[in-house]
Amino acid sequence: MVPAALGELKERLGTISDLQHAHSVLEWDMEVWMPPGGGDSRATQLGTLAAVAHERQIQDRIGELLAELEPYAAGLPPDHDDACLVRVAKRDWERMRRVPTSLAAEMATTQAESYRAWVAAREDDDFHAFRPWLERMVDLRLRLAACIDPDLEPYDSMLDEFEEGLRQDDVQRVFSVLQPELTELVAEHADPDEEDILRGDFDVGAQQVLSRELIEAFGGSWEAFRLDLTVHPFQVTFGRDDIRLTTRYAEDDLNSVFTAMHECGHALYEWGSSPNLDRTPLAGCASSILHESQSRLWENVVGRSLPFWRWFYPRVQHAFPDQLADVPLERFHRAVNRAQRTFIRVDADETSYGLHIILRTELERALVSGDLAVKDLPDAWNSRFEQLLGLPVPDDRLGVLQDSHWSGGSFGYFPTYLLGSVLSVQVAEKARDAIPDLDEQWERGEFAPLHEWLRENLYSLGSKLAPSDTIIRVAGGPIDPEPYLAYLREKLTALQAA
Amino acid sequence: MVPAALGELKERLGTISDLQHAHSVLEWDMEVWMPPGGGDSRATQLGTLAAVAHERQIQDRIGELLAELEPYAAGLPPDHDDACLVRVAKRDWERMRRVPTSLAAEMATTQAESYRAWVAAREDDDFHAFRPWLERMVDLRLRLAACIDPDLEPYDSMLDEFEEGLRQDDVQRVFSVLQPELTELVAEHADPDEEDILRGDFDVGAQQVLSRELIEAFGGSWEAFRLDLTVHPFQVTFGRDDIRLTTRYAEDDLNSVFTAMHECGHALYEWGSSPNLDRTPLAGCASSILHESQSRLWENVVGRSLPFWRWFYPRVQHAFPDQLADVPLERFHRAVNRAQRTFIRVDADETSYGLHIILRTELERALVSGDLAVKDLPDAWNSRFEQLLGLPVPDDRLGVLQDSHWSGGSFGYFPTYLLGSVLSVQVAEKARDAIPDLDEQWERGEFAPLHEWLRENLYSLGSKLAPSDTIIRVAGGPIDPEPYLAYLREKLTALQAA
Repeated sequence: MVPAALGELKERLGTISDLQHAHSVLEWDMEVWMPPGGGDSRATQLGTLAAVAHERQIQDRIGELLAELEPYAAGLPPDHDDACLVRVAKRDWERMRRVPTSLAAEMATTQAESYRAWVAAREDDDFHAFRPWLERMVDLRLRLAACIDPDLEPYDSMLDEFEEGLRQDDVQRVFSVLQPELTELVAEHADPDEEDILRGDFDVGAQQVLSRELIEAFGGSWEAFRLDLTVHPFQVTFGRDDIRLTTRYAEDDLNSVFTAMHECGHALYEWGSSPNLDRTPLAGCASSILHESQSRLWENVVGRSLPFWRWFYPRVQHAFPDQLADVPLERFHRAVNRAQRTFIRVDADETSYGLHIILRTELERALVSGDLAVKDLPDAWNSRFEQLLGLPVPDDRLGVLQDSHWSGGSFGYFPTYLLGSVLSVQVAEKARDAIPDLDEQWERGEFAPLHEWLRENLYSLGSKLAPSDTIIRVAGGPIDPEPYLAYLREKLTALQAA
Repeated sequence: MVPAALGELKERLGTISDLQHAHSVLEWDMEVWMPPGGGDSRATQLGTLAAVAHERQIQDRIGELLAELEPYAAGLPPDHDDACLVRVAKRDWERMRRVPTSLAAEMATTQAESYRAWVAAREDDDFHAFRPWLERMVDLRLRLAACIDPDLEPYDSMLDEFEEGLRQDDVQRVFSVLQPELTELVAEHADPDEEDILRGDFDVGAQQVLSRELIEAFGGSWEAFRLDLTVHPFQVTFGRDDIRLTTRYAEDDLNSVFTAMHECGHALYEWGSSPNLDRTPLAGCASSILHESQSRLWENVVGRSLPFWRWFYPRVQHAFPDQLADVPLERFHRAVNRAQRTFIRVDADETSYGLHIILRTELERALVSGDLAVKDLPDAWNSRFEQLLGLPVPDDRLGVLQDSHWSGGSFGYFPTYLLGSVLSVQVAEKARDAIPDLDEQWERGEFAPLHEWLRENLYSLGSKLAPSDTIIRVAGGPIDPEPYLAYLREKLTALQAA
């Protein structure tokens, strides 16, 4: 017999979920459509929404309902929806109660203001203008960490925000294996003289058509999806069957097809969450690593594979005959996989990508621990970038100002990109065990079986289980760098031989 | 000495204002961008935001603060910002406390669902599918009126929602003068054989450029404005310097320039509200009639005048040389002013427009009083339309399903369009008294003096004063149909002579 308290709890959590989705709509509009003058009002509105949501998150009544429901939850299988709901709601409630509402509001308002400052500073290549905002964000995040997890090291608390249970040592264990191997792979395979086929003259309208075609082929639907333009591509969910993707196009760059596949991976994950979980904290993805595992799986494991390009390359050639009619498939496939030394993370190839992340992880750890002052960040970036990637950074736009994450205080997010990439290979191997003819399907442009397998084995779970449990369930074990390294080595060796 | 209670009151009202603006962002997104699947979640979210805002509107604490502030307000001049704030906040607080939060939430959710049903029904020309939603909206509005103004007739209460103090008798007094006169003017001047120059082949991209040019010329700025596309054009304000306009284009119709001017009039009013009033209930326009007086002033009094077209017509000809190079200015000017019998209100000429409004006002009064059942509405529409405008209605898309207002339960809004048109002429006469060479300015494309006069004498006031007081202040007297009729007569006579 389901206790009456469950209905009330769900209604209260539903209200919080609605307010959070409203917050997302306002943030999305801020990044996609808002006229420049709207920034001040919007920052205030986001602060208000955060405060109103926070007040509801910490209500005593939620604690009473949870206490009432715990005996019921204890009698259920641990992966029963209701048992998971009580577990996750309790964790959220306890964490949120340690944060003053004024701090939650200040964080939301400052994030919006700081994002604006970052956009302007990046445009003007002016780190100095952004510096006070970054200092404020470091300070705010430290204050937040001190409230939520006074016993954890601050950076561990920040990691925990994106990946429950993840600690610096876990990150270090994986990254210390990856760094020398990736450095060696880049050194071995990067050829600065090779022509970059993805740079050229590519009509934006045609790129847009290709992006939309990919999202449809992977299983997205415009009944539920939208694709818009932003400075920094992202994906955000507003509700059941309301999934927003953003991307960007440049006339001289064909990498937008990878951005589309990346954001589509995020979108499919969110969209695949079981409808039973809607309007609860269990809806959507389980963690940042899992989220990134899916964006990277669709972007890279699928989207840079030879079978995929056997299907899609003729379409791209058809869209850009002048540029690509004479470029054979094998050469194009090598171009989208070759190791390169470049400045911009989001355009990086799969191999060097990890080094971009390791750089950011080291620097943000040092910012948070106090070992690095914000004022010294550009120099630290430039010198460590040159060590890791062998290039001198010409300006901060191609360096420390390129990513939006720190403007929002998202310290602890970057490592999940690389850990997600690592995990994506493990998940793909499990999918391949279940569907042995994946390659043949991709060659025919068939992605439904993979999508369905992922939906069943991962997406539908939402965030019912702890991330580490979800990872074990979908990947068969914890995060392991070896399959990822083997995958990269095999691919690069094959390309070299081709 | 300003009491401390004022700061707290403003902070509480600011939170409510932020939540209302967030509500507007979600509604705007719903009409402009949302993928079709998002409707259910969005309706729920709008209900939640309405409930959360309502709970804050009716807090006891606001009543305490108002009681504390009344002696202070009583000692101020009646148009002092703080005196107005206390007056308006008290009125809102008292009205809102008569409404249960659950009803406020149900209204917001049902409005969103009903809007969707209207969009689909209109597309399919299927009044039957929309009927239950309209019945629900009538019922909801009646319940709301019974809460807010139990002593008023329901339709009076609904009018009051859009125009504080407006009653059916006031409407009737003006409309009973207008109806026979407008009918006569249409009969006298409508020439069904005259070619409609605004119908043809007009590239949408070029229409868009013209629309944007007009908004800039009238004083709008893309630093604060955006122009997007919707089924039903509207204007909405998200905050200081964040003003959204929507419009629509059709390849075969040049009327979009009037839509742009109309929505721009709304936008300039909202934008001109004094910054001191931001985040208070005094920000923005004072009432629907005043709002419409400004959309109609810019669209018609300016936008259909000969001096205006002396300036703008060469630009339109330049944009559409094949269609208009051989059409002389005078003929074009006659085309945008000629009386016509047509089906669609928003495309109606200035003279017949009033008859479209009188039809809707009669029908919605009858719906609200119970004299007309929703099921009988299409027949009633069609027969009365034929009486007033002399045309048999071929289908409900060109008839009862054309407007979105009733889907949101906005009974009592339509009359403000015509009353606003009437007022627009009175306001323009006052502006002309102050700026005698308006015509010469418009001929040169100079609209800043008019914009500035309106800003100073109307827009900056926000909703500090009661609408009737604002009207007297800006127009020199109450709403009077005679100047409007004289303006129409003079224009039509001049056109006939031309």
